[in-house]
Amino acid sequence: MDTQAVLDRVDANLQESQQRWFSLLRIPSISAQPAHAADCQAAAEWVRAQLAGMGFTAAVHGTAGHPVVLAHHDGAGENAPHMLFYGHYDVQPAEPLELWDHPPFEPTVVEGPHGARVYARGAVDDKGQVMLWLEALRAWVDETGGLPVRVTVLVEGEEEVGSPNLEAFLAAHRAGLTADAAVISDTGMWDVRTPALTTRLRGLVYAQVTVRAAERDLHSGMFGGSALNPINALTRILGQLHDEQGRVQLPGFYDGVTELAPEQAAAWDALGFDEAAFLGGIGLSTPAGETGRSALERLWARPTADVNGIWGGYQGPGSKTVIAAEAGAKVSFRLVPGQDPERVAEGLRQFVTSRAPEGVRVEVEVFSGAPGIEIEAAGPVLQAARQALAAEYGRDAVLIGCGGSIPVVESFRRMLGMDSVLMGFGLEDDQVHSPNEKFEVTCFHHGIRSHARLLGELAARC
Amino acid sequence: MDTQAVLDRVDANLQESQQRWFSLLRIPSISAQPAHAADCQAAAEWVRAQLAGMGFTAAVHGTAGHPVVLAHHDGAGENAPHMLFYGHYDVQPAEPLELWDHPPFEPTVVEGPHGARVYARGAVDDKGQVMLWLEALRAWVDETGGLPVRVTVLVEGEEEVGSPNLEAFLAAHRAGLTADAAVISDTGMWDVRTPALTTRLRGLVYAQVTVRAAERDLHSGMFGGSALNPINALTRILGQLHDEQGRVQLPGFYDGVTELAPEQAAAWDALGFDEAAFLGGIGLSTPAGETGRSALERLWARPTADVNGIWGGYQGPGSKTVIAAEAGAKVSFRLVPGQDPERVAEGLRQFVTSRAPEGVRVEVEVFSGAPGIEIEAAGPVLQAARQALAAEYGRDAVLIGCGGSIPVVESFRRMLGMDSVLMGFGLEDDQVHSPNEKFEVTCFHHGIRSHARLLGELAARC
Repeated sequence: MDTQAVLDRVDANLQESQQRWFSLLRIPSISAQPAHAADCQAAAEWVRAQLAGMGFTAAVHGTAGHPVVLAHHDGAGENAPHMLFYGHYDVQPAEPLELWDHPPFEPTVVEGPHGARVYARGAVDDKGQVMLWLEALRAWVDETGGLPVRVTVLVEGEEEVGSPNLEAFLAAHRAGLTADAAVISDTGMWDVRTPALTTRLRGLVYAQVTVRAAERDLHSGMFGGSALNPINALTRILGQLHDEQGRVQLPGFYDGVTELAPEQAAAWDALGFDEAAFLGGIGLSTPAGETGRSALERLWARPTADVNGIWGGYQGPGSKTVIAAEAGAKVSFRLVPGQDPERVAEGLRQFVTSRAPEGVRVEVEVFSGAPGIEIEAAGPVLQAARQALAAEYGRDAVLIGCGGSIPVVESFRRMLGMDSVLMGFGLEDDQVHSPNEKFEVTCFHHGIRSHARLLGELAARC
Repeated sequence: MDTQAVLDRVDANLQESQQRWFSLLRIPSISAQPAHAADCQAAAEWVRAQLAGMGFTAAVHGTAGHPVVLAHHDGAGENAPHMLFYGHYDVQPAEPLELWDHPPFEPTVVEGPHGARVYARGAVDDKGQVMLWLEALRAWVDETGGLPVRVTVLVEGEEEVGSPNLEAFLAAHRAGLTADAAVISDTGMWDVRTPALTTRLRGLVYAQVTVRAAERDLHSGMFGGSALNPINALTRILGQLHDEQGRVQLPGFYDGVTELAPEQAAAWDALGFDEAAFLGGIGLSTPAGETGRSALERLWARPTADVNGIWGGYQGPGSKTVIAAEAGAKVSFRLVPGQDPERVAEGLRQFVTSRAPEGVRVEVEVFSGAPGIEIEAAGPVLQAARQALAAEYGRDAVLIGCGGSIPVVESFRRMLGMDSVLMGFGLEDDQVHSPNEKFEVTCFHHGIRSHARLLGELAARC
């Protein structure tokens, strides 16, 4: 393997890589806005053309929504490892436009504390990060005439709207997509000097609870003291979600939840996460969550319960003396590996039903459920990524968690039996989904080099 | 006193009394709708003319809203009792019009189970009930050439919109309005054969509670387990409003609340109130409120707490994984005599503040506070009313409560130091504020006679 030559090629071609990145950023492929459907198509075609130019068999596949790019390169042949690179070409809407300092779809280079940075919608999420592995693949092809591993590429155009058509696509192309592992760059580094691999994702159960009492709204003077008040009932139920220690009170909620391994806890402690600064940035001073747990443990490795919305009765100015006919709430639970979403949903039903006063009708609708995921730290692809990052940055990557979920990781595991390596290069201040999204050129550069190294590592290990 | 002759006069003139009532009903004096301002003015003029025709000095007074009719008759002179008759000429909007079986402003006579009844907006509330005492006064004047007591009349035009200008009017006309007692017909009978006097009204404290946490809405994956959730906090606070026995948990809430006198409790028990039917009519099967109390006690003589509205976070269809920046609720308390509204408001502040988790900002805004009222059963005017009703109906009037408040009663007590006698003739099925409002002609007839008797009783007692 001639990884060093490939890395030199990355360095030599950095300007051209940037120009290609900028070309993609100029396509306003906003998946949520129907007026940009043609732009989504154009972005898909652009990605396909890049891959075809590197020797991939590449096609744009129509879906019920925006198209999917699927490409394959046999690389070093049947006995080489097989990697699936996944990303998305669609971006969030740019609104509110008046808050952007530069045009969102004309990439603008500005000097910052870490050197040059590029402002644009999609600069990092996910066009910038897709470019990291596209340019790494290109450098290998340019330098060696091929790829050291087998590579399948899947780039979708609906990630920002919840990937409504992705699972049908996975089911239809299962055989071609099933690889040794997926590689995804859609996450972040610990800081600009410290690479990270995300190995824990929380799952989610999201539900709506509705409490109904009388057939119509009532006058609180005429009926107060006799008629059931569904808002009183709902607050009484939801007010018991947590105990005094911040533990969630659903029956069986902690079944399967394991304590963090001591070495993992120690590694996170060593990161010196500043929760006061984290919360201070959003105007909070006091942490919430379970007592006796570190901040990163609460964010990455402990399940939660949050009421995401609540409504009922009179919400206007002043007063109206009404007893509402019904009240409702959105309630969600972040899950950690080991918890069964079905069991949590059932626990919620039991929790609500057992606390509902006689005479009200309660309904619990579960909209979605996905388990938490932990990626095996000892897996060969993750080990290769750790090696690549350590070589590139001169320090070990930290294995971090993510408090949210990345649904495609769960889909890959459930539908294709395949784990993912989440090697991302974003920084916390990249303003993802907000005005003035940016990506640091140093992250872009080292990100390409890291992916180039990963390809070499994977080939060397097999 | 020639009360019997006056009663005969009432009977003889009943058709003419009905025609005058119908004239007033034909004026669509809807106070809430600006397009009907001239109709409100016309209704005020109509009432003024009736009174002037009986020998009252009567004037229509402009206010910042709809006008007030103020009239006076010296009757039997300075040493006679002085009564203030209060009512309102304005009515609720008639919408939804398609649900009316007859035109709302063309009174329609229909035979019902109690004989003839009259359908129209305002048939009972309050034009029909104002006509009861207007026609009783007229019968006295027609029969005797004068009145047996001194009478002041106050008829406002904004009761259905909360009487926003009434207190200013009371303050400006305090001397002329202060009488021995006020007489109001805007309440109901127990049933068509059983007269009632309303002697208990619940008061009200109405407040808004707001809980604020982060400066902006947060992603529940990224922040859940670290960031305070104001909806979690609000439901936890409000979920503790009641204990397991349905008692309100505000500190000092029951200070001053007295147990119902045994004879009063026995009288209410004797009424045989059917709570199952009362609740069944609104689709409920199970009573709420304090355990171990009778239904009428809970409705009329015990204080309550109700959340009248609640809001926060995402209320749309499907799911959004947000931790809201703030959440709020409308909370109100029905008060009974003896409770201090200021103390209740302060108890709410303490209750909320002491339960708010560290790090959230809570605000308690108190919009209004009025005490519960009990009208002294032994008072001379109430005794006169009991006597009049017993004579008219051949059975004792029951002393009932009202779960709501009648703000003018509190205003009269606070501003004029004057109690009110609430002698009303509505029935539960009169559809007040709804389509197909009606008033029974038998209630109209006996109501006039009862007021005629009351005037005679008052004169005889002094």
